[in-house]
Amino acid sequence: MAQSQIKFYYKNAAAETIGAEHGITQSRLEKLLSELKEGIRRLRSNSELKEKEDAYRRLPYESRTVEKVNDLVAEFSSDCDCLVILGIGGSALGNIALQTALNPYLYNLDGHQRKGPRLFVFDNVDPVQFGSFLDYISDKLDRTVFNVISKSGRTAETASQFLSIRKLLVDKLGEDALKKHIVATTDSKTGTLRKIADDSGLQGLDVPAALGGRFSVLSAVGLFSAAMCGIDIDSLLAGARDMDDRVSGEDFAKNPAAVNAAINYYFYKQGKRISVMMPYNSALYSLADWYRQIWAESLGKSKDLSKAEVHIGPTPVRALGATDQHSQVQLYREGPNDKLFTFLEVEDFGRCVETGPSPQNAKELDFLAGKDMGMLLNSEKKATEYALLSDNRPCLSVIFPQVNAYTVGQFIYMYEATTTFTGALFRINPFDQPAVELGKEAAFALMGKVGFCEYVGLSYADFAKEIKSKTNIDAAYLL
Amino acid sequence: MAQSQIKFYYKNAAAETIGAEHGITQSRLEKLLSELKEGIRRLRSNSELKEKEDAYRRLPYESRTVEKVNDLVAEFSSDCDCLVILGIGGSALGNIALQTALNPYLYNLDGHQRKGPRLFVFDNVDPVQFGSFLDYISDKLDRTVFNVISKSGRTAETASQFLSIRKLLVDKLGEDALKKHIVATTDSKTGTLRKIADDSGLQGLDVPAALGGRFSVLSAVGLFSAAMCGIDIDSLLAGARDMDDRVSGEDFAKNPAAVNAAINYYFYKQGKRISVMMPYNSALYSLADWYRQIWAESLGKSKDLSKAEVHIGPTPVRALGATDQHSQVQLYREGPNDKLFTFLEVEDFGRCVETGPSPQNAKELDFLAGKDMGMLLNSEKKATEYALLSDNRPCLSVIFPQVNAYTVGQFIYMYEATTTFTGALFRINPFDQPAVELGKEAAFALMGKVGFCEYVGLSYADFAKEIKSKTNIDAAYLL
Repeated sequence: MAQSQIKFYYKNAAAETIGAEHGITQSRLEKLLSELKEGIRRLRSNSELKEKEDAYRRLPYESRTVEKVNDLVAEFSSDCDCLVILGIGGSALGNIALQTALNPYLYNLDGHQRKGPRLFVFDNVDPVQFGSFLDYISDKLDRTVFNVISKSGRTAETASQFLSIRKLLVDKLGEDALKKHIVATTDSKTGTLRKIADDSGLQGLDVPAALGGRFSVLSAVGLFSAAMCGIDIDSLLAGARDMDDRVSGEDFAKNPAAVNAAINYYFYKQGKRISVMMPYNSALYSLADWYRQIWAESLGKSKDLSKAEVHIGPTPVRALGATDQHSQVQLYREGPNDKLFTFLEVEDFGRCVETGPSPQNAKELDFLAGKDMGMLLNSEKKATEYALLSDNRPCLSVIFPQVNAYTVGQFIYMYEATTTFTGALFRINPFDQPAVELGKEAAFALMGKVGFCEYVGLSYADFAKEIKSKTNIDAAYLL
Repeated sequence: MAQSQIKFYYKNAAAETIGAEHGITQSRLEKLLSELKEGIRRLRSNSELKEKEDAYRRLPYESRTVEKVNDLVAEFSSDCDCLVILGIGGSALGNIALQTALNPYLYNLDGHQRKGPRLFVFDNVDPVQFGSFLDYISDKLDRTVFNVISKSGRTAETASQFLSIRKLLVDKLGEDALKKHIVATTDSKTGTLRKIADDSGLQGLDVPAALGGRFSVLSAVGLFSAAMCGIDIDSLLAGARDMDDRVSGEDFAKNPAAVNAAINYYFYKQGKRISVMMPYNSALYSLADWYRQIWAESLGKSKDLSKAEVHIGPTPVRALGATDQHSQVQLYREGPNDKLFTFLEVEDFGRCVETGPSPQNAKELDFLAGKDMGMLLNSEKKATEYALLSDNRPCLSVIFPQVNAYTVGQFIYMYEATTTFTGALFRINPFDQPAVELGKEAAFALMGKVGFCEYVGLSYADFAKEIKSKTNIDAAYLL
């Protein structure tokens, strides 16, 4: 172990701690771990799923991607004050999570705290939000780089942003400027964005064909913006490799992803269908958003691998300690015992902020005077955990010795593996997302796409009519 | 109706639309509305609850508060480039929600888009986050105003921030500077912060004694920062008054808070225990966070008003359209049918952003070319709703004609009333939060408070020992 490792702690979900009605017994855990072994064997015997799993497990070892990313950073960074990501879902959440976790809170606002360009990530098509950005950026285009990320290039939201930015660049700086201002991260061979990039001679980075968007943060998708903004991507990938060793261990009782998956599966089956991830650390909050995608989209499935109807899927919820003690903990303690909590705890914040002295007339605050804020934050974590345990609510912890690229790389890889393993226990395909298709096609139809929609077996025009007839306002239900 | 009104739409939760297994029938709704009438009568017959309800219902009419806020704004704004809120829970979420909804996305970054000071809200005690802010602000203190918000002044997180800022101001600018740089929003008569404010001669704003934190956004708690940042608080309160008329209507079939409460109660009882609020608008996303507090803390209760054990409480989840279509919708469609969805939709964004032309070799994007982003965003909303309906998932919509202070005021007031009414149906006290106490006291104990803890009947020192014995790491469960 070259550097410090994150740890996974599960005593506070054990029957020993919170009782057999709500906790998991050691023997049940052992039984699930052997089921899991079988489940993973089953999953990997399916060549399509094996290929999908390999696609993300290979990423921490792809030194050629790192070289290519570093080459592009060298080429673009000297002329870049603003880096703008155009992407959505897996093409945005990882970028946001790395930036939030590993760069200063006021990175964009304070030049003294910044080692790279300002970073903006646009993962919506909100005209007011995007308009505010256009107002800001229009006189700074000559020192702005846009990284458009889409495996296919047909994602409507990203395409819409990209076409508006492309027009802006051509209008203001001319067609030739596209090469200097756009990096296209997309499939290496096929797809709409690939074609556009090739035709305009854009610089590009590859998304491996078998790689799912929600498993892509350690590919060029996440690495380019991170490296541009001064994040140590070598360390990030080294952390992921470290965790790869740990989650590849055959002794599942010592494998954090295996134990985490078994526990999560158990509690879901026990009716605790809500998974709360609650970092006691503001920088890690966006990692909980990244988790929210990988968990929901991978495990929310209506069919098991034999095509039987199941409708399974825990609902991930992100919360923030200590903030949400004043918002959610009332529910978490007194509401239904239907949740599994996962805290993210940081041992060493790497920074002290000391509370000042208490005023003379406020002796009741003496106990805070001169104390470090980090001590308070970690005391709040322990206090909340204690309070939840007193109501027999199961709690897990992932403990970060420090927050740095190495530990964040471990965390990401651990949850990618945990997600896959949990999918194996549920006997579902953790790598597809078939239910997203209908809404995508419906949006195409409403935007006036022409032609025939194979997916629903109607022309887009007829499909649009059907959608409108189902969703148009009926005044009888309008208040 | 002086200005435009938000609308509440519930056809897509009706049995007529999604079938009787998952939808609500008209007759069931009517029955619940008469139960609600009785429930509200019961709630208001309890003088303590009546007082709590009145405390927030009075706010839109308190012109003296508005005058006082405006006076302070006049006094402080000319010397203020940065306004910093120190508060947590209800002392922060409303401020963030108003700012995000009603000011430009890049308000803090872009001086051209700003009509007031930069706004920072600190609702955590994270030394890394707060440290980044201290690095930024330390040479700007002379033009910075801190608004510390705490009814009691004993909230550990806010007290910790406040004491560190107080020391910084005294060290850098001298004791006399406190008056010019701190506005204390607290109880008018009692409490730690009141004492400190009086002793230092601080300017202050009052929090009414009976007002709960999560119902306080339309009091001085939320109004001061909003007014400082150029938000039209008169219009905000006028919107709330408009909604007050609508939710006071005796004809409950036409009362949006009553129908919303009855529908929410029904679906919870039917096993749909997760309430997803999903604005199709980035500016409204923080309102969903505000909702998350009022919903969880008001309705998550373990006892009904007769003290019987119940353990009720829907779990609120915030999601963002269109972004979360690429993160959560897979689960929302294929996972368990255990959710009620509430979309926030905006009819007129007030801004057009046009998608550029599609490149010659990408004809598949022609249908987007020249279209407005707002049209795409609203098409995505209809598309997602259509997709969810096809799987019989119940959907509500709150429709904003535009996003402005008037409609946001309506929304806030409507959800305050909806929360109260839903609490009446559940027969719980929607205004208390007894379960938060244990964790607060536990944090005090871990921070070394001396004396006796009444709440647990132990000295703080012994209490700290007990907490540590229950939460300290046991290596047998550590991976």
